[in-house]
Amino acid sequence: MTSPDRATAPHRGRPTGHTGSVVARALGVLEAFGPDRPALTLSELARHAGIPLSTAHRLVGDLTGWGALERDETGRYRIGLRMWELGALAPRGQALRETALPFLEDLSHVTRENVQLAVREGTELVFVERLAGSGAVPVHTRVGGRFGLTATGVGLVLLAHAPPELQEEVLAGHVERYTPFTVTDPARLRRILADVRRDGYSVSDRQVTDDALSVGAPVQDAHGRVVAAVSLVVRRGTAAPRALAPLVRTSARGIGRALTD
Amino acid sequence: MTSPDRATAPHRGRPTGHTGSVVARALGVLEAFGPDRPALTLSELARHAGIPLSTAHRLVGDLTGWGALERDETGRYRIGLRMWELGALAPRGQALRETALPFLEDLSHVTRENVQLAVREGTELVFVERLAGSGAVPVHTRVGGRFGLTATGVGLVLLAHAPPELQEEVLAGHVERYTPFTVTDPARLRRILADVRRDGYSVSDRQVTDDALSVGAPVQDAHGRVVAAVSLVVRRGTAAPRALAPLVRTSARGIGRALTD
Repeated sequence: MTSPDRATAPHRGRPTGHTGSVVARALGVLEAFGPDRPALTLSELARHAGIPLSTAHRLVGDLTGWGALERDETGRYRIGLRMWELGALAPRGQALRETALPFLEDLSHVTRENVQLAVREGTELVFVERLAGSGAVPVHTRVGGRFGLTATGVGLVLLAHAPPELQEEVLAGHVERYTPFTVTDPARLRRILADVRRDGYSVSDRQVTDDALSVGAPVQDAHGRVVAAVSLVVRRGTAAPRALAPLVRTSARGIGRALTD
Repeated sequence: MTSPDRATAPHRGRPTGHTGSVVARALGVLEAFGPDRPALTLSELARHAGIPLSTAHRLVGDLTGWGALERDETGRYRIGLRMWELGALAPRGQALRETALPFLEDLSHVTRENVQLAVREGTELVFVERLAGSGAVPVHTRVGGRFGLTATGVGLVLLAHAPPELQEEVLAGHVERYTPFTVTDPARLRRILADVRRDGYSVSDRQVTDDALSVGAPVQDAHGRVVAAVSLVVRRGTAAPRALAPLVRTSARGIGRALTD
């Protein structure tokens, strides 16, 4: 499965609802950065954040002084290590990743296939970890990268267990098509989501690329809430979804158990 | 080697130099979180950030709306996934980690010992990755955690290649003692740092805990600058530093090469 990063910065264009405040402007400066824009000049920052150069100068000074931004040898700004340190405290990011890693590594060792871990953020998913299997089908997922909820194994699990109103919001919106096999019909997607809830796993058959198949399973916390999803991504034809599902489900249950310890 | 997390939040008490600004106050709210304080109530946040409750309420609203903070089921605030996503863009955090991971995993597989990757941030180091060897000496390093530069294998490498004025600042300050073997004498440390530069690797023998030995090596970028350090941490007596050094150095060189590709 190829899961290209979105070409835009995460949350780009998402209204903060506080456009007038200084905090919103500072956050707007940070939001100018994305996978496709890791380094920006001051004027690029001002343009992307939609603020005057003088304001950008002051905000960037504050953010750099604190370590949220760093200046590289070319004079351009990058996201600073301080942001990474703070981000490492996010329970749904680094903490989840560290708890899950031994289980993901076991799954990767046993199968030699691609293993992914994702959480839902609004109407999208965020990849929290990916382990590339040696010799497995190429996957271009990036840790910290976003993707839609309708086509991947992890996405279908997260969508199936999202609040009903969010499911309807996603199904009513534009459903991206990647291959001739991508399911975009809302009624068919609704049936697929019901199957995922009933079976305890999802199957994405050539829905993202026409050579890959992924099987996903939910990670549940102590209260039974689905907090993440795990998937195996394999070259289509090498293994039956039915054979992969117990492996993925066992791994997901192990992570859920470790989360509540 | 046991590398306990600092009991305080990273950078806690570090002056931002902009204490009056709204941005500084918002950053102060984020700074209230730390490994020991992952979840805080609004009033705890206000107290740690040193701001009135009404100001905290407004700032926390802005930060939560944007996703920098998340509210958990108990009503307390935590660092949000959005911060982790942004942090994943920090070149010295996630990008370095992803480039280094295959080399670190090889080193871990071959030796079955603890492998660590760290970068320097001011007068401290930040652990960017750690792989715990199966059956290896226990290491309590946390990814994203900080430690001093004078006692560990990675720290001695990073300090040896830091600007001379920073080395002097560290040697002139308080040098923490962890065991009877921790070197705290500035003159002796200066000789050790010269040895690290000459030999191309560092040895920390029981300087952090009295059962562990670590060997570190520098990761250099295309311009020869030391941008990170790798170490193996083993139970003392199981292997000679001289035997470990080529392994660690080879791994560090591989990472440096991959960084410039």
